[in-house]
Formats: sequence, structure tokens, C-alpha cells
Amino acid sequence: MYTIHSSKIHNKWDNSLSPVLTIKSGDVITVESREASDGQVTPSSSPSDLLKLDFSRIHPLTGPVEIEGAEPGDALEIEFLDFATKGWGWTGVLPGFGFLANEPYTTPIDLAGPALKIWKVEREAIAKFGDIEVRVPSRPFPGVIGTALPTPGKFSTIPPRENGGNMDIKHLTKGTKLYLPVFVSGGLLSLGDTHVAQGDGEVCGTAIEAPMDVTIKVTLHKNAGITQPLFETPAVKEGDFKEYLAYPGIDPNLWEAAKKAIKGIIGILSSHMTPVEAYMLASAVVDLKVSQVVDVPNWIVTAYLPKDIFPEEIRPKLRLIR
Amino acid sequence: MYTIHSSKIHNKWDNSLSPVLTIKSGDVITVESREASDGQVTPSSSPSDLLKLDFSRIHPLTGPVEIEGAEPGDALEIEFLDFATKGWGWTGVLPGFGFLANEPYTTPIDLAGPALKIWKVEREAIAKFGDIEVRVPSRPFPGVIGTALPTPGKFSTIPPRENGGNMDIKHLTKGTKLYLPVFVSGGLLSLGDTHVAQGDGEVCGTAIEAPMDVTIKVTLHKNAGITQPLFETPAVKEGDFKEYLAYPGIDPNLWEAAKKAIKGIIGILSSHMTPVEAYMLASAVVDLKVSQVVDVPNWIVTAYLPKDIFPEEIRPKLRLIR
Repeated sequence: MYTIHSSKIHNKWDNSLSPVLTIKSGDVITVESREASDGQVTPSSSPSDLLKLDFSRIHPLTGPVEIEGAEPGDALEIEFLDFATKGWGWTGVLPGFGFLANEPYTTPIDLAGPALKIWKVEREAIAKFGDIEVRVPSRPFPGVIGTALPTPGKFSTIPPRENGGNMDIKHLTKGTKLYLPVFVSGGLLSLGDTHVAQGDGEVCGTAIEAPMDVTIKVTLHKNAGITQPLFETPAVKEGDFKEYLAYPGIDPNLWEAAKKAIKGIIGILSSHMTPVEAYMLASAVVDLKVSQVVDVPNWIVTAYLPKDIFPEEIRPKLRLIR
Repeated sequence: MYTIHSSKIHNKWDNSLSPVLTIKSGDVITVESREASDGQVTPSSSPSDLLKLDFSRIHPLTGPVEIEGAEPGDALEIEFLDFATKGWGWTGVLPGFGFLANEPYTTPIDLAGPALKIWKVEREAIAKFGDIEVRVPSRPFPGVIGTALPTPGKFSTIPPRENGGNMDIKHLTKGTKLYLPVFVSGGLLSLGDTHVAQGDGEVCGTAIEAPMDVTIKVTLHKNAGITQPLFETPAVKEGDFKEYLAYPGIDPNLWEAAKKAIKGIIGILSSHMTPVEAYMLASAVVDLKVSQVVDVPNWIVTAYLPKDIFPEEIRPKLRLIR
């Protein structure tokens, strides 16, 4: 058992970094993760603070960790054992960033940001949207986890790549086993950008961003024959929600279909909160599923909003029809 | 309680069709649905029979049903109460049709079809893929359900539209309430193209196609203020599967990301069956989820394959790493 403190960070993928710790295959480590803003957002922040963010500090990643004997062609298996959150989290809309950032849609109904929601985080993440107290089950995962890239140089942490990185896949949570390819000796594993919960899509560009301690078991597989991240997961029960409102987005372009779906959900929620609050809530809980990609020429992406996150007395008011 | 027999069919959306039955709001009806080929595929069909399909007979829809008092601006609520399958179903690859139909990928590994799988259908759909007996839980739904379109004329049933139609959304199953807009007097509801099960995506272009009786309750909502299909569903537990293999497709184009994901799953399955069998199985059970659409410039669609459909002794052999 090792702990890597959150003082050991880097903000770029760089395969020349020196490891902060060396472990053996099978070791369990606890990795302290700062949240995505690296402390620039706090529980007392206001929306306008998002305009002052120093983007060079985004995505502080804890690591890298060297795994003894790891060589190019091998794979690391990362089993997610435990996540310890720290009592709070945030969701924000940064101007110019997010799925609907540059939409004409942002003019008539304001989704542009800056907007910020602070969540209280225990077994659930709790925040008010409009007058409604929303409770989102905690399903924590690292937004970013990756090995060093094969190519020398400093690379932005924003895009996911063959090393994993900023995948923002909500199912990389407790019980999941993630496999990452090793491209350099030692593998050089790092993680950060931890999220308490997120919908499939992460539409506003942030999830419930939060510092936490992540406990993982790292196992080395020699000559594993993989070239990109893959995972095995039991965690597709979607938070054990029982009721969903669903909005199919129908369009000849899959990207536009997804936009229609999420705009539809924002429209439904906007009877109860501001549109930008609806956009943030959708990012935290709404799942985008590809319903079909074969019914020429109109594809469907459907957005699923769990009603269970709302107080019981509010649920009947979340109506699809007038 | 009414039954509409499967002799009452039409193959085009046409708002001038005469209703085969008139019901009142709140009535429960059982609708007999032929399968998508209209009897051209049978339990004894072979793949080459798919080359002889008369496409003018595809999607026989049972109906239309007139709802008394339904007028433009209203909505029909369709609650799915029960589905009675008929012992068999089929999944096929029709040359030129499907998500990977025109891929360079179809050259080195043959996904072109014709290919056909006949399933035995009871509480599960059962078929052999390679030497493996696969069991897919029955989660029946109509691929096509819709009201008459606002525009006069005869319209193909293939694309979904504002009236619903060929949505192929797997969650339109028992317990779900679907809302469809009414565009003409009486609404004129029809359904067909019934599926025993399907993955989100329906990637090979067919699901587990099967005849069945569909029992629905139809409720009229006056002046409902909807312009496209919407639904409320408890059915996102994905068949109570416990274990998934997942393949993230990472690409700057969402469509290509989805293709990478499904190709990845086909690759994994192809150690145990032919690639075209893997393609059909993926269509029946693999879910495509939009993991994120914000990490510029690389989006992720992840394909989820439930291991639970395989015999227990096979599951450990479905490996992500060598």
C-alpha cells in the first residue's frame, strides 16, 4: 500500500517525466487527486471566478507511477477499488467550452456561462437547481487516467488518445478493470480530473468535479496485444435509477442528433430552473445513447434524464406533455 | 379490449388511409405484428433467401387505428403493457445495408452478407454463434410505431420522423409510456417491425426480428404541445446484465468514433465466431453510449458487450488482452 500525495502533479503528458513512485505488479496504491481546476475553484467560488481561470493549471494529474518491468507492448490493468470524496464538488460552464458552446441556441436562451454550481458531496451530491434540491448518487471516477504517450514532447491533457487520458467515461468506477497500453519503459501511469458523477456525454464540459483519493490495484500484463484503452465493467446500472424522461434527437447527422436530444432535455428542465442550470444538470446526470445508426437517412441519439434525482413531490411536475 | 389482426397492414405512411379500428381514449388493444420481412424470412430460411427479398413488402405495419376525438396538436400516450412472442426470430445482414455496409473494413473481414441467424425465442432468444450458445433476455418492443404524418402522400417507413415511425429505440418496451404527436384527425396509429431484443445502435441493420402480439393502452391528451416523439421509461437496466466488455472508439468525428467502437467489439468476438456473426450479435446486444462530446478534438462513443449472454465457461475466454 502506497499513497501518492497530490503535491506530485504534472499538467502535460510528457514521457520524459521522472516517476514519483515505483511499484510492482499487483500493488495497491491510493492516489490523491486534486480537482480539475487545481484549487482555482473552491466551495466559495462565484461564476465570475471561472473567467479568471489559469488554463495552464487545468488537469493536475497525480503521478507518474512507474511499474517495474513494464515495457512497450505490455498492458496495465487498473482495478478501481475505492474512492474517498472530500465533501464538495463543482459543475461549471466556461464560456466557449462545451457541447453547445457555439450554438445559435445560446443566443435566445442563455447557455454561454460563466455559470457555476457547488455541490455538497457525501453518498450523494446535493445542490439546488432553481428551487429544487437535486440528489445525484455518487459514482466517482477519474476523468483522466493514462500511461505515457509513445511520442516525446509535451501534450495537452484535453483530448483522450491511445494512452487513455481524458476519456471522461463514467463507467471507470468502482469494480471496473481498465486496460491501458504501455508505450515506454515503466508505463508511467497518472490520473486526475476526478468526478463524483457524470452523464454519458458530459455535455456542458464539466462533470461534478471534485478532489478525492482513488485507490487502485495495478497489475502488469506482459505482451498484452492492445493498442488503446479497453475496460471490463459491472457498472452499467446507471445509479439504480427507476424512472427516466427520454428525448430522441432525430437527424441525418449523429452530432446534430445528439445536440437535438440534449436541447430537448434542457427545454424540459427549463420550466423548473434556468437553462444554464439545466445544461449543467444534464452534464452531471443525463445519458446520451446511440439508439440507431441504420435507418437511412435519420439517425437517433436519445437523451435520458433520471427523475429519481428530484424530490418525490417534484417528479410528477416533470412532464413531457403540457 | 380489441385485437387488430395482422391481416390489417400497410407498408407506407399515408395519412389518407382508412382506419381499421376506432377506439376511445383509455382503450387497451392487442396488435398482432408480422415481422419486418412480412413472412419472407421464416425459421427455415437460409442466408441466400435474403437476396430475394421484395423490399416493397418490408415493414408491414398493423393499423392504422383511429382514436376518437384526436385532433392536430393533441398527443397519444401509448403505454406498453405486454408482448407475446411466437417462438422464433431472425437477425440478418442484407448486402448494402447496415452501419458498416460500405466500409473498407468489409473487404479484409467479410461483413458484407448475406448472413442470417435464426433464434429460438422464449423468455430468452437462443442461437448459436460459432460453437457458442448465446442467450439474450427477451426485451420486446416495436421497431416502428407512429401516427400519420401531417403531409399527404406515401412515405417510406425506413426513416424515423416527427411522427415516430422506425425509431428502433430499445427502451420502448414493457412499462414505457411513449408520447406521439397527432397531426391528423383521429391520429391514425400503426405499429410493426417488432424486435425481441436489440442493442442501442442496431448496427447490422436488423435486431432480433420477430412476429408478436403487442398489447398497449392508448390515452389521448388534448392540446399536448409536443412536436416529436418523447417517452418515459423504467427500462434502462439493460437486461440486468452484470458484466460488460467495453471498447471506447476515440475520434474527432462522432460517427467514426461509433464505427471504431463497434469494430473493436467485432474484433474481440471474432476469436469465437465469424466476423459477420459477431456483427449480427453486436446488433442484437451491444449498446453504443456517447461517453463524451466535449474533450476537443477527440470524442468517444463506447460499445458495451454484455458477457452474461454467454455460457459461464465461455466468459473467461472473452478477453480484452492477449
